[in-house]
Amino acid sequence: MTAEAAPPISFDDVADAADRLRGVAVATPLLRNPHLDERVGGRLLIKPEVLQRTGSFKFRGAYNRISRLDPAERRRGVIAYSSGNHAQGVAAAAQLCGAPALIVMPDDAPKVKKQGTLAWGAEIVGYDRRGGESREEVAEGLAAERGLSLVRPYDDPLIMAGQGTCGLEIVAQAAALDIAVDCVLVPCGGGGLTAGVATAVEAKCPAAEIYPVEPEGFDDTARSLASGARQAARPDARSICDALLAPEPGQLTFEVNRRLCTGGLVVSDADVAAAMAVAFRDLKLVVEPGGAVALAAALSGKLDLAGRCAAIVLSGGNVDPDMYAGAIAH
Amino acid sequence: MTAEAAPPISFDDVADAADRLRGVAVATPLLRNPHLDERVGGRLLIKPEVLQRTGSFKFRGAYNRISRLDPAERRRGVIAYSSGNHAQGVAAAAQLCGAPALIVMPDDAPKVKKQGTLAWGAEIVGYDRRGGESREEVAEGLAAERGLSLVRPYDDPLIMAGQGTCGLEIVAQAAALDIAVDCVLVPCGGGGLTAGVATAVEAKCPAAEIYPVEPEGFDDTARSLASGARQAARPDARSICDALLAPEPGQLTFEVNRRLCTGGLVVSDADVAAAMAVAFRDLKLVVEPGGAVALAAALSGKLDLAGRCAAIVLSGGNVDPDMYAGAIAH
Repeated sequence: MTAEAAPPISFDDVADAADRLRGVAVATPLLRNPHLDERVGGRLLIKPEVLQRTGSFKFRGAYNRISRLDPAERRRGVIAYSSGNHAQGVAAAAQLCGAPALIVMPDDAPKVKKQGTLAWGAEIVGYDRRGGESREEVAEGLAAERGLSLVRPYDDPLIMAGQGTCGLEIVAQAAALDIAVDCVLVPCGGGGLTAGVATAVEAKCPAAEIYPVEPEGFDDTARSLASGARQAARPDARSICDALLAPEPGQLTFEVNRRLCTGGLVVSDADVAAAMAVAFRDLKLVVEPGGAVALAAALSGKLDLAGRCAAIVLSGGNVDPDMYAGAIAH
Repeated sequence: MTAEAAPPISFDDVADAADRLRGVAVATPLLRNPHLDERVGGRLLIKPEVLQRTGSFKFRGAYNRISRLDPAERRRGVIAYSSGNHAQGVAAAAQLCGAPALIVMPDDAPKVKKQGTLAWGAEIVGYDRRGGESREEVAEGLAAERGLSLVRPYDDPLIMAGQGTCGLEIVAQAAALDIAVDCVLVPCGGGGLTAGVATAVEAKCPAAEIYPVEPEGFDDTARSLASGARQAARPDARSICDALLAPEPGQLTFEVNRRLCTGGLVVSDADVAAAMAVAFRDLKLVVEPGGAVALAAALSGKLDLAGRCAAIVLSGGNVDPDMYAGAIAH
């Protein structure tokens, strides 16, 4: 027998994050819809993190991390790199904690995400996603130069634990409905939300399966889970899911996910657009492409849900009007 | 002193409806948004009935009414006239109660409302809104001919009490947040939702003001409240708020509303489209034109909300994609 190192986060870390977030984060509801249940032949429990502060789950982890900075660290401020949802989560959490925030954001990020980040009082430094610059290096350089605290998007135990509060709510809300959750489908970029949710669900519903869901081409977590070691996303890949373009699984997140996830699911851009249209018509929720991948996997039959109950995380809703209009026109 | 007749509904009727709807209707959340608070200089508590079964509050009243039919009445079935939200509420409630449903619906109703009504298992009979036919007469004729129970859209105490459960939730949820509600803004067509909400709020927060909100041209309740007697909508009026085109206040609803409402607010189509765009961007909620009038009144300054707390009902989200794309393009 090989002794394994302790996992990067435990259930207690998630419970501790929940205490910290109480009254600050939105306890998003758990919604049901008979039409969707009929369509999959099972039961879906929809967790709309689009209703979270800043329009995505990212506020949870960011606040759990930034609220623990000491007064001197808060005064100097925080920095993050992000395509837009982590940016807004960090900006809003920093504002609540009285810390200035600097965000390194790709030039081609959706307008709504840039505007949101600015509206939460942060400053943005642009970089060219295709220009060969590493956004991590840009951010780390600025952090060292200005004495800022770097708030990583997923590979940080406090971030993972904060995102896990979403999973904690799911298991509590499902229990209140007297429904046993068979599986949880989670949109996956770097894997922080998946790792946090998996940690919470495993502790409370050990029989439930956890499936990270990724867009085609960015199925690095799916392939990493299949091979047992971290694999990179395909270098030439393109996807409408701007929130899920992480180049590879995080080191810490993958340590958690390889133990707790059943396997990865992968969806196409067309599956995603169709799921956005269903969320518009049947759920009345605005979901961005990256936020819709788990619903897309359920609706396009990537997993057989007949007779089963699946919790589906809608992880974000920050999408520009023109892209949205195109998706719901289906 | 003049003795007044007892009002058509009491708080107990609303509480009784809440018992009946428990576990059947969605207890929609009460949402907050710092950006919107900043914009109005006060506090908004958003009640998203778009998340209700069938995408509008109408399910509440319909189920409260239909679930009280006896087995023989259920077998014969129900009939309703509606531009689409009451139609879907009746169709879904009838399906749950095992009753066939026949709906008289204008030919120009939004596609999503027709499709939703059919998806809930109802049958639709069309009529021409401009053709001089009275939809009430068409429905009453069919009801008599086929022995169906007519489920009126608002002028029925059980319908009003059912809609009132939305108000009951608002006061309970605001109390749980330890927030005192100063006023409640409610989209108003025939006045059933307003009457129900006002009855619930008056009993629990007697100091709160109640404002029905209507689209320009269909400001019959506002003018009726001002004059003290029921006034008709302007015959040549047009509005994008297809859910709020009632020709005049209901007799029973106005009996309640004239006692409990402070006054009516009126918004333009442009105010409404702007509010739909704000709900898309900041709340991630799909709101139809008629469902957005209360938010539109708050955001366009129809009432001074500086330093005050306003509960805002988003009453429905059943809108066609092309109309929606146009509204959010602002």
